[in-house]
Amino acid sequence: MLDNLKKQVCEANLKLVAEGLVIQTWGNASGIDRARGLVVIKPSGVPYDRMKPKHMVVVSLADGKVVDGNLKPSSDTATHLELYRKFKEIGGVVHTHSLYATAWAQACSGIPSFGTTQADYWYGDVPCTRKLKPKEIENDYELNTGRIILETFRKMNPLEHPAVLVASHGPFAWGKDADEAVHNASVLEFVARLASETLRINPKTQPIQSVLLGKHFLRKHGPKAYYGQK
Amino acid sequence: MLDNLKKQVCEANLKLVAEGLVIQTWGNASGIDRARGLVVIKPSGVPYDRMKPKHMVVVSLADGKVVDGNLKPSSDTATHLELYRKFKEIGGVVHTHSLYATAWAQACSGIPSFGTTQADYWYGDVPCTRKLKPKEIENDYELNTGRIILETFRKMNPLEHPAVLVASHGPFAWGKDADEAVHNASVLEFVARLASETLRINPKTQPIQSVLLGKHFLRKHGPKAYYGQK
Amino acid sequence: MLDNLKKQVCEANLKLVAEGLVIQTWGNASGIDRARGLVVIKPSGVPYDRMKPKHMVVVSLADGKVVDGNLKPSSDTATHLELYRKFKEIGGVVHTHSLYATAWAQACSGIPSFGTTQADYWYGDVPCTRKLKPKEIENDYELNTGRIILETFRKMNPLEHPAVLVASHGPFAWGKDADEAVHNASVLEFVARLASETLRINPKTQPIQSVLLGKHFLRKHGPKAYYGQK
Amino acid sequence: MLDNLKKQVCEANLKLVAEGLVIQTWGNASGIDRARGLVVIKPSGVPYDRMKPKHMVVVSLADGKVVDGNLKPSSDTATHLELYRKFKEIGGVVHTHSLYATAWAQACSGIPSFGTTQADYWYGDVPCTRKLKPKEIENDYELNTGRIILETFRKMNPLEHPAVLVASHGPFAWGKDADEAVHNASVLEFVARLASETLRINPKTQPIQSVLLGKHFLRKHGPKAYYGQK
Repeated sequence: MLDNLKKQVCEANLKLVAEGLVIQTWGNASGIDRARGLVVIKPSGVPYDRMKPKHMVVVSLADGKVVDGNLKPSSDTATHLELYRKFKEIGGVVHTHSLYATAWAQACSGIPSFGTTQADYWYGDVPCTRKLKPKEIENDYELNTGRIILETFRKMNPLEHPAVLVASHGPFAWGKDADEAVHNASVLEFVARLASETLRINPKTQPIQSVLLGKHFLRKHGPKAYYGQK
Repeated sequence: MLDNLKKQVCEANLKLVAEGLVIQTWGNASGIDRARGLVVIKPSGVPYDRMKPKHMVVVSLADGKVVDGNLKPSSDTATHLELYRKFKEIGGVVHTHSLYATAWAQACSGIPSFGTTQADYWYGDVPCTRKLKPKEIENDYELNTGRIILETFRKMNPLEHPAVLVASHGPFAWGKDADEAVHNASVLEFVARLASETLRINPKTQPIQSVLLGKHFLRKHGPKAYYGQK
Repeated sequence: MLDNLKKQVCEANLKLVAEGLVIQTWGNASGIDRARGLVVIKPSGVPYDRMKPKHMVVVSLADGKVVDGNLKPSSDTATHLELYRKFKEIGGVVHTHSLYATAWAQACSGIPSFGTTQADYWYGDVPCTRKLKPKEIENDYELNTGRIILETFRKMNPLEHPAVLVASHGPFAWGKDADEAVHNASVLEFVARLASETLRINPKTQPIQSVLLGKHFLRKHGPKAYYGQK
Repeated sequence: MLDNLKKQVCEANLKLVAEGLVIQTWGNASGIDRARGLVVIKPSGVPYDRMKPKHMVVVSLADGKVVDGNLKPSSDTATHLELYRKFKEIGGVVHTHSLYATAWAQACSGIPSFGTTQADYWYGDVPCTRKLKPKEIENDYELNTGRIILETFRKMNPLEHPAVLVASHGPFAWGKDADEAVHNASVLEFVARLASETLRINPKTQPIQSVLLGKHFLRKHGPKAYYGQK
């Protein structure tokens, strides 16, 4: 069932390790089949070195029930599903504890846009959620993690900000499929480190000028893009 | 004698190098056979590239005397033994000078819990011992190193805090066997670096909320754990 | 057409990745054939793992028009061309978003010369441009990027300062050919990191004494050089 | 001539690169044959990837004249020779621009001893020289570099402090042969980084207690050492 998507999602999970974004079992990638309303996601707590496409778990977008697979899905499945439900344009989601992005999440701070590297991917800051309230942690914790991400994006377009930091926790990234979500998680880690290094040189560094921000974001994204091949 | 345990302990020592936790000869791993009261530990100052299971040294838990092996055991053997004597639940101990954990030890500071990454393993801070007194250094130095660790844990459960920092020195980690002790030493190095990077972004970062700390620790540990496969 | 130069430029682009100066598609190297007035440059947004000499694009130095090749040239081509037009002594140009050099660019600060490592390559600071004005961003952005570099070098010799930081963006480096430009981009990344680490130890570190600066620059460059083989 | 020593010195030079202490051509290792009064050293500015034992240069300890070899010796030869002349106990010298040690040298600061890692090798701080005076730079620069190292060691034993930082420049390390000098240069880089990371956690970290310093240095060095195998 969904063999192609399982293969894609498995490869995305392995790429997280290969790119140094995930150590131990601390991360997960998923992909969605919109037509069938099914999500393929990594199993929970399984070592990466033995992971194969057949281990991927298929769950229902509607209620999260396991439709195919012998293993328990990632403990963060409810968060992934909530993102797929509201961000209709995305096809893949990734969660990591990558070092620098997680440091910003732990500092409970969004990542200001200091230059064109970030502007090529985010149309402004990388946002950070508010902290969860005790009640939101005690019940439906993983679902509520998805909900505060959506709350953070009330006035933002997920395609213009392809990742978010969950306060005291770590990053979630997304894209048109699992592979692009991994790519965005990788870019996020780089810009997180770059922002840290920038502030250490000058703690009063000002955000990028808005004209330059728009120039770079729009030369890569949208109808007037001129970066890359046609 | 104890061939299986020697193999396990040798592999754990080599893994310390492979994971970048140990350079030169600066680290050691051990494992215990509780039934026989024997501990298998790395020999002192032997290069890792020639290390084989047969080089491992077997010492008596009771008095530290060498029971099997032609080489001198690690100079830190007395510390390992003291931990095995009082932490009855552990089966492996690891000592390293890994960069970030050692930096916190040199700063004589425990590592505050700033997020869920640390909360998945430590039910709070990574503790740091007090400094040794001159007399404790002059006589029975390695044994006293074990004793101040135990003193630090008087009101803590070693299974809820699977590593400690020895002030002005470096980390010790443990687990149900040598392999899990290496795993915990590796996680410690990551959370040590993560805490450093967090404080550089915001030196006033507050510790993780206690509800979120408990949620993450208990979703992975204890009777109500739901992370991983059954 | 220009097969040798295409090969050289392709190799320079791949070396940027091998040396860790470029991740994703964020960089470009070019080389010039002065006799013919033609520049060979990387195509825009093409993944490095499939890049071959035949993909390189040939453009005219005079007007930037594509003379040979099926792909669009790098979006930064106009910047490269402007540098070749005014810096007559150079034969290769490289642009990267390498971590530490980009952090200094984002901090909108030149890199002070703190020691002999930098003095072996730069006869003083690594300069940083001023920020572009909104009008300079809105029209002919890439050409204007070249122009503010030239403005910065009005009283500087590009051979004595083989790289520059473009404010809020990142570094450009050059040399007698594409390979030397890569070499200088690599040295720049090292001295950028070295300056950051130096300031973290002592934020009030003074620049290198001018006598020592001259000694080191001139023992490697110019008529009295005595470093290396005849 | 001196084929064994040439092989040893060549291997030491290549190890500097393999261990990440040297990039480009920025480093050199040498070894001495005390009986013959001859020093074998790396040639100047030769790429490491083509370096063979036969390229090593033999110079006279007394006057620095080339006795064997077709290439020019390292531009830092005069510094090496001066160290061999006064530090009678050493058999190998290494110079690098390794990142963290060079940052401390650029900050013109010795590295305080903050823990047992450094105490296992240095009986106290890693010393830093004073800055050279203009006259000392203008004439006999490399010889004077050796001289300020000796000046720094007037009341220190080079075997108890197996490396030094030259202000505004970088580190020199030594040992009983070229291989041990490389080992000490590698340890130096680690303790330099460790000290930097320690101060970032707590800028007011106090030096290691003198009793603990002595304990660790003397358990590895001198007549009462008990670390390692007999």
